[in-house]
Amino acid sequence: MASQDDVKVLSLWSSPFVMRVLIGLEEKGINYETVPQTFPDKSPLLLEMNPVYKKVPVLVHKGKPVVESLIALEYIDEEWTSGPALLPADPYERAIARFWADYVDKKIYEPATHIFRYTGEKYEAAKLELIENLVLLEETLKGKDYFGGDKFGLVDIMLAPQISWFPMCEIVGGFKIPMEEKFPLIAAWMRKCKERESVKKILPQYEDLLQYATMVRKRVLSS
Amino acid sequence: MASQDDVKVLSLWSSPFVMRVLIGLEEKGINYETVPQTFPDKSPLLLEMNPVYKKVPVLVHKGKPVVESLIALEYIDEEWTSGPALLPADPYERAIARFWADYVDKKIYEPATHIFRYTGEKYEAAKLELIENLVLLEETLKGKDYFGGDKFGLVDIMLAPQISWFPMCEIVGGFKIPMEEKFPLIAAWMRKCKERESVKKILPQYEDLLQYATMVRKRVLSS
Repeated sequence: MASQDDVKVLSLWSSPFVMRVLIGLEEKGINYETVPQTFPDKSPLLLEMNPVYKKVPVLVHKGKPVVESLIALEYIDEEWTSGPALLPADPYERAIARFWADYVDKKIYEPATHIFRYTGEKYEAAKLELIENLVLLEETLKGKDYFGGDKFGLVDIMLAPQISWFPMCEIVGGFKIPMEEKFPLIAAWMRKCKERESVKKILPQYEDLLQYATMVRKRVLSS
Repeated sequence: MASQDDVKVLSLWSSPFVMRVLIGLEEKGINYETVPQTFPDKSPLLLEMNPVYKKVPVLVHKGKPVVESLIALEYIDEEWTSGPALLPADPYERAIARFWADYVDKKIYEPATHIFRYTGEKYEAAKLELIENLVLLEETLKGKDYFGGDKFGLVDIMLAPQISWFPMCEIVGGFKIPMEEKFPLIAAWMRKCKERESVKKILPQYEDLLQYATMVRKRVLSS
């Protein structure tokens, strides 16, 4: 059964990439239905809707799939123009937003993922890299409420799931991200985002995620 | 001295990423000036314009930098709307174009780069992966002249530099991409693109690129 807007999201509650798409839909006020997926078995629907990567999230609008979270967010912004804009209107500002969205993917999510996936040298390197790469993000927030300026937008959505995942990185990594000391602007941004309806609704419970993250790490260590 | 449109591109003649941006500008009929960079020494201008990645291409428009080739192509399309569109107008078709643009980056350029960068197992794997990943690209061309349909656009530009670089992959990799046998649609697409003014003007000479590619590979093998 389709939602009123005929939007489904093939999802996994713990996936930061799924969270991005859901926060985008919430921001736009779109009705959607989530279709939870199980892993490692992939559902026929997932295989049909994302035959190339076989991964969540898949945003299915009127039966047609959009995959990759950043691409889905741009689609949401361009398809539902009546809601608040996720990207700015000016071409140069759009380029800047896309640059930082990409930076968040490559420079924040990648080392964060490596903390879970690796051991030894690569694991240690990932922790240092994550902290190092936060320096530039902190700088871009200077004088601004959100990454795009005074409005919550694309880059904020891209990073928001890390509000839940950073503490998991710290626990699994056995280290501390010196958030308040070194990254006070990001820390303030996180507090602000946590209170935002769209974010609050989508971010998972700490205890649930802790259990999940611990299980993921155990699986890596025993493999 | 700035061009009439006040566009400069910090460039390197052999870089496929630079070629993408230049082809995009050519398609739009924009006047630009290239500012060739030398490596490994980075110019003060490059460090100023791309402090995060310190890489070419940098598209500098009215003194303001746009980096990352895909982001630069989207900027070109949104800033100069009077020229032919690089992306389709429909949000869903735009999402599809972005998906394949991203696929070309992750699934074609990445293994192609690995052929130059690695030896041993990773080098062998990259060759197989490249051929395997071409299968899906071949499928998307079915019944179409270009990746977007009947018009040359974003995905075509993203892949076009490989018309010059595929032969280098073959030489450095000591293997043959069975283009005519297994990928006749891509082969036909390459022939068509080669005759296109924007592409013909930007792709480098075979002999020059061969010399460069051989030198790059020698440096890897001796390091």
